[in-house]
Amino acid sequence: MKVVVVGGLAAGPKTAAKIKRLCPEAEVTIVEKGRYLSFGTCGFPYFIEGKVKDITDLMKTSTGVVRDAVYFKEVKGIDARTQSTVVAIDRENKRVTVRDVNNETYTMEYDYLVLATGARPVKPPIEGINFRNIFQARTPEDAIAIDKFLRNYPECNVVVVGGGAIGLEMAEAFASRGANVTVVEMFPHVLPPVEPEIALIVEQHLSEKGVKVLTSTKVLKFEDDGEGHVAKVITDKGEIPADMVLLSTGVRPNVELAKECGLKTGDTGAIWVNERMQTSDPFIYAVGDCAETVNIITGQRVFIPLGSTANKQGRVAAINICGGEATFPGVTGTLILKVFDLTVARTGLGLKDAQKAGFDPERVIISSPDKPEFMPEAKLLILELIADRKTGRILGVQATGYGDANKRIDVASTLLFFKATVKDVMGIDLAYAPPYAPAVDNIIKAAWAMENKLSGKMDGITSLQLKEKIDAKEDVLILDVRAPWECMELNLPVDVVNIPLGQLRRKLIELPKDREIVVICKSGLRSYEAYCILKGAGFDNVKVLEGGLAAWPFEKAPKSAC
Amino acid sequence: MKVVVVGGLAAGPKTAAKIKRLCPEAEVTIVEKGRYLSFGTCGFPYFIEGKVKDITDLMKTSTGVVRDAVYFKEVKGIDARTQSTVVAIDRENKRVTVRDVNNETYTMEYDYLVLATGARPVKPPIEGINFRNIFQARTPEDAIAIDKFLRNYPECNVVVVGGGAIGLEMAEAFASRGANVTVVEMFPHVLPPVEPEIALIVEQHLSEKGVKVLTSTKVLKFEDDGEGHVAKVITDKGEIPADMVLLSTGVRPNVELAKECGLKTGDTGAIWVNERMQTSDPFIYAVGDCAETVNIITGQRVFIPLGSTANKQGRVAAINICGGEATFPGVTGTLILKVFDLTVARTGLGLKDAQKAGFDPERVIISSPDKPEFMPEAKLLILELIADRKTGRILGVQATGYGDANKRIDVASTLLFFKATVKDVMGIDLAYAPPYAPAVDNIIKAAWAMENKLSGKMDGITSLQLKEKIDAKEDVLILDVRAPWECMELNLPVDVVNIPLGQLRRKLIELPKDREIVVICKSGLRSYEAYCILKGAGFDNVKVLEGGLAAWPFEKAPKSAC
Repeated sequence: MKVVVVGGLAAGPKTAAKIKRLCPEAEVTIVEKGRYLSFGTCGFPYFIEGKVKDITDLMKTSTGVVRDAVYFKEVKGIDARTQSTVVAIDRENKRVTVRDVNNETYTMEYDYLVLATGARPVKPPIEGINFRNIFQARTPEDAIAIDKFLRNYPECNVVVVGGGAIGLEMAEAFASRGANVTVVEMFPHVLPPVEPEIALIVEQHLSEKGVKVLTSTKVLKFEDDGEGHVAKVITDKGEIPADMVLLSTGVRPNVELAKECGLKTGDTGAIWVNERMQTSDPFIYAVGDCAETVNIITGQRVFIPLGSTANKQGRVAAINICGGEATFPGVTGTLILKVFDLTVARTGLGLKDAQKAGFDPERVIISSPDKPEFMPEAKLLILELIADRKTGRILGVQATGYGDANKRIDVASTLLFFKATVKDVMGIDLAYAPPYAPAVDNIIKAAWAMENKLSGKMDGITSLQLKEKIDAKEDVLILDVRAPWECMELNLPVDVVNIPLGQLRRKLIELPKDREIVVICKSGLRSYEAYCILKGAGFDNVKVLEGGLAAWPFEKAPKSAC
Repeated sequence: MKVVVVGGLAAGPKTAAKIKRLCPEAEVTIVEKGRYLSFGTCGFPYFIEGKVKDITDLMKTSTGVVRDAVYFKEVKGIDARTQSTVVAIDRENKRVTVRDVNNETYTMEYDYLVLATGARPVKPPIEGINFRNIFQARTPEDAIAIDKFLRNYPECNVVVVGGGAIGLEMAEAFASRGANVTVVEMFPHVLPPVEPEIALIVEQHLSEKGVKVLTSTKVLKFEDDGEGHVAKVITDKGEIPADMVLLSTGVRPNVELAKECGLKTGDTGAIWVNERMQTSDPFIYAVGDCAETVNIITGQRVFIPLGSTANKQGRVAAINICGGEATFPGVTGTLILKVFDLTVARTGLGLKDAQKAGFDPERVIISSPDKPEFMPEAKLLILELIADRKTGRILGVQATGYGDANKRIDVASTLLFFKATVKDVMGIDLAYAPPYAPAVDNIIKAAWAMENKLSGKMDGITSLQLKEKIDAKEDVLILDVRAPWECMELNLPVDVVNIPLGQLRRKLIELPKDREIVVICKSGLRSYEAYCILKGAGFDNVKVLEGGLAAWPFEKAPKSAC
């Protein structure tokens, strides 16, 4: 059996290696147009940051062996050809044409062809985009060039165009090198797949770390220094000096080869595949960033390129090519990234996506330490859970904070795969010991808060909703149930009454029953206690500020008493 | 509605507080025989270690308010009576008799009674057990006494009787205070709910940290210094000097009160309850450490007291008492603990339990970094996955290592709840970014390794099995496929051939086809490559040392070349 794999970065080598393990007699060839093999761009920010010392560390096995053509030959029994490009696919004769490093072409026959052509960063059609020092983070050569630039100009002005995951990871890396960083994002918030309440917290954190964030801002053109080096980024909100620019405005699947030979592509623009990772030609598979996948929750086809997905798809394709039966069921849209001291993570549907998909979504936001309060290493974690009102089915979870969001998002991804309801969360026997988690894990707390909401036992308001209410000058009374010595408060032109929770039962008389009351505290927990007391005493129009001040992403001010 | 809650530590206050939130008009009384409320013993090791500065920190809310009777009154609207004991339950008249701090008795009526009487450490009937400085870690007073002893005698000899989770957590705390610690365990390994291969790694780590571990060792009696202070622990393997002893030989549910009034108890010795947490008397609920629960996988009734379970049960009981409908489905037996630099965690069934429950279990052990290898903070994680051969259903997962075991065990617990198969793991969209996880998460790697085993594509041997084989002088050839410069090797009287993986395809001729070959490397990954090469070349009797040398819990020796 002859297998040709086009693309040698992530999904390609995975597929090739698995095929060789399953069918040692197969002849497997990888054709890779770049110089390097088995290389992901996910490590670039950590190379720029200096955490990964050498760019080749990103291509090494755990014992320090570089995964080059010799390694593939000797260890894997795979013929890996770098600086070689597949220029045409002849499906009828099951043959590909390859152009090698010397620009000579030859053909190779295949029984199965695997397309792992990956994706490339979008280069938006902006005037001046070809000035020097405007980079993309695509190849090792790009990463090396960026590193070199920062070595020469450590305190330069860097503009990152695009506030998605890669943009923010790179912004942090640039800042850690001493650069003066501005992130420009076209949408109203950074990280568009993340809910606004969470994204605002990330934006606030970036500001605290000295990274300027300009949202709802469109880049109009780049200007140079007169010698072809970028000098300014001109946006619809003004101009920004720039010694260097990183473009991170998304990626697009490499589908040209597939299209030219008539393979089906989907509405997402990526190559159409079935569950077995077969394209519209049963002898051609497509895996990794060039292929479509399915959102498990909505059933819709999506393009979400990720190294984790690439590896799984490679395994599935290999098993099927070797005569087995394997399927790739899809993704739930999980994303995680580190932004300085914060982790930001999400999985499943956001509120609007859930509405679009025909659900009737409710959401709840909770702030809580990720370990028991008495452990000094306990850190704040903010969770947003989205569930369907009718069925209680969990639709999505988002998280941010200094605490362990990673674990809760992976539990949430697992819940989503099994179409879990908030009630199911009760049955999950999550690990408990003080160094690891509180007795009631944050994800269970979120599910309980959702149960309270769905059963009408809690009414909440998010930070954004409260801000909008106040900006619209609606009549709302804020009841702060914290102790007088707790020091931050909302900086808003609105009536605030401070009654510590312990005095509330005695001081109910001081509160009006005819006004809307929003109860605030540090995390939302005491507000919920207060809410129950008020409801029990006949106050009808009461809401909890969900997540409390810990999740308040707007300006806070020291209390006058502090 | 009048509710009396017996027990004020974990499940009791949770139940009481939830009842008050659901039914503000309910009269809820907590009767607690100790001085303190809302207090878990889980924090003791961290108090002894000095991480938690003050014992009352274990009873504080996140804003530093101690949860005392005043707090319960003013914040929760609950009448909490400490140093008060329920001495009798009159079920017919729905009345309890309480003895107060002044030794006076009175009766209280109830509509619903909640038993949250907890559990107490077993005090084994050993001669000399009442000598001074023999402690249990049960009450805050115990913890304070232990702390005081260590202040006075920081370099004393401490013997911990019982190598379960609490014993090991306390052993670490004692060692961190400078004590010379010996753990005595009756069973062949510490942590009996943990598989031997994992437990052996923990024992090795304890030794490295200077804690002596004596397994299969029974305490026969204690001897004193002539003045009533413990001085020696006499075991069936010899005697150990001891200035202080901690007994941690398990806990037993407090069921006396329940038994006296005729409530049903189970074979586990704990109070029988249904899914709604009702005892055999529908007006009496039992929650927390005094109550039985169900193992979700086997359906069997079990006694596994944990603070996490207590909280969930409290919520369920409260909802039902207030006229709602809630059920507690049970547990999967999740356990996690920190042992110095290691995390040890498990969930589901062990191999023997799985056999007993009628499954046909297979297991696989993998060693792998918990993040991409290029990240300097990547740490080793060893996973053992147990699945049913017939159905592929996951039955249990165990973990240890320096890496993030916590996350993988919580994902595993979630998988177990949904009766997931190894194939399902493919569909879980686990979060991927270099600071958090490798592209193929460890739990997915374990599932893939299991798929390989179940489909006959991999044959493995565990560390213990190989050790037994060699101790029995079976003919076995060890093929070490690491590079010559990798420095640790098995210290065993057995033939070892070293052929680095990259040379194996060329040097197959050097290996005998008629001997059993066990392939070893650092993690097991290269051994699996080698296994596939050997199988492809017609070697029939080949096995991979699962988890590699990273999971080898016996003596290792530097290679002669190093």
